[in-house]
Amino acid sequence: MDRLPEQTIARLPVYLRCLSQARSIGMRVINSLGIAQMAGTNAAQVRKDLSYLGELGTRGVGYDVGSLAEHISDVLGLETSRRVAIVGFGRLGRALVMYPGFDEHGFDFVAAFDADPARVRALPGGRSIDVRSIDNLETDLVKLRVEIVLLTTPAQVAQEMALRVAAGGVHAILNFAPVVLELPADVKVRPVDLASELQVLSFHLARMT
Amino acid sequence: MDRLPEQTIARLPVYLRCLSQARSIGMRVINSLGIAQMAGTNAAQVRKDLSYLGELGTRGVGYDVGSLAEHISDVLGLETSRRVAIVGFGRLGRALVMYPGFDEHGFDFVAAFDADPARVRALPGGRSIDVRSIDNLETDLVKLRVEIVLLTTPAQVAQEMALRVAAGGVHAILNFAPVVLELPADVKVRPVDLASELQVLSFHLARMT
Repeated sequence: MDRLPEQTIARLPVYLRCLSQARSIGMRVINSLGIAQMAGTNAAQVRKDLSYLGELGTRGVGYDVGSLAEHISDVLGLETSRRVAIVGFGRLGRALVMYPGFDEHGFDFVAAFDADPARVRALPGGRSIDVRSIDNLETDLVKLRVEIVLLTTPAQVAQEMALRVAAGGVHAILNFAPVVLELPADVKVRPVDLASELQVLSFHLARMT
Repeated sequence: MDRLPEQTIARLPVYLRCLSQARSIGMRVINSLGIAQMAGTNAAQVRKDLSYLGELGTRGVGYDVGSLAEHISDVLGLETSRRVAIVGFGRLGRALVMYPGFDEHGFDFVAAFDADPARVRALPGGRSIDVRSIDNLETDLVKLRVEIVLLTTPAQVAQEMALRVAAGGVHAILNFAPVVLELPADVKVRPVDLASELQVLSFHLARMT
């Protein structure tokens, strides 16, 4: 399992979502082509990705939707819910807390940290979250047993905050700051760089005209 | 230029940001190792990526920071600003409009579309944006000459809205809905799938313990 390519790991959540959709319309068996069509890829890719997880399908029949979903869910470690904190509770941070996709997948927001916790007004929809000062970030992260941090601070302080997050025992960061973070090897970072995404789209637009 | 690998295209905005940072501290020449260290990659990768753009550096010296930045900027089509609209103006959409990284890079929000435009209250910070009903989405997108759409609708309507966006002459979509969109080949989609990103982090956490 440790030799799973990064690209394969990144596609597993997509397959899981497809299987869940297939189940919701009553499908009990699905083949690689069916998954591929839902996932926007090709059947060979699906078979290759899933082959890393062991012998799962039946030749000529396909995969059992329920047990494949369960297996992927196990591989992704989704059987237990994960404790998540947001560091930098500005507009983006507050929008992310409200994003329904996190809840649905067993990610629990246990706290938000901000340099100025007083400026945070009530969240919409009657939701509440424990907003704390960043003064005791490291010890609070340990106390709250936070496993994943969404980093939404301004770019200038992102590296410093990321080091403090790592010092708080957190091994997984989703980084929204447009900065490449330098962290110990046992901290996994996934960047979500929105301006870069638009620049990639711009590249394609420039080629079209 | 049309044979640039997707992975290379995705790294060009990162290199551009590194060059801008290097320039801001007074550097006029930089070598591949310097760029690699800032970008969190290795020198061979940087040289390979940049080799697609032509003969740019001087062996034993490095790259001219200013002209390399300008060249990458040209390749990414950033010399002209791009007209952007948001389709689905809920909390995430409103947070994205306020995200400073877009403005800085020459992306102009010209309109937002929502099924219920009346529910949109004023934006913070005295900003305003033209909020329109989705009833005339296709014709409005054409009229406003929108080039890029940020799709932040609920998942259930994302595919339908994406087809209407494509019918409005838009060839580039940044898709925040957790759905794989099926669109004509001349529409480029970049997915930003936040729940999947957390699931990838969860995979790594599960391997660590």
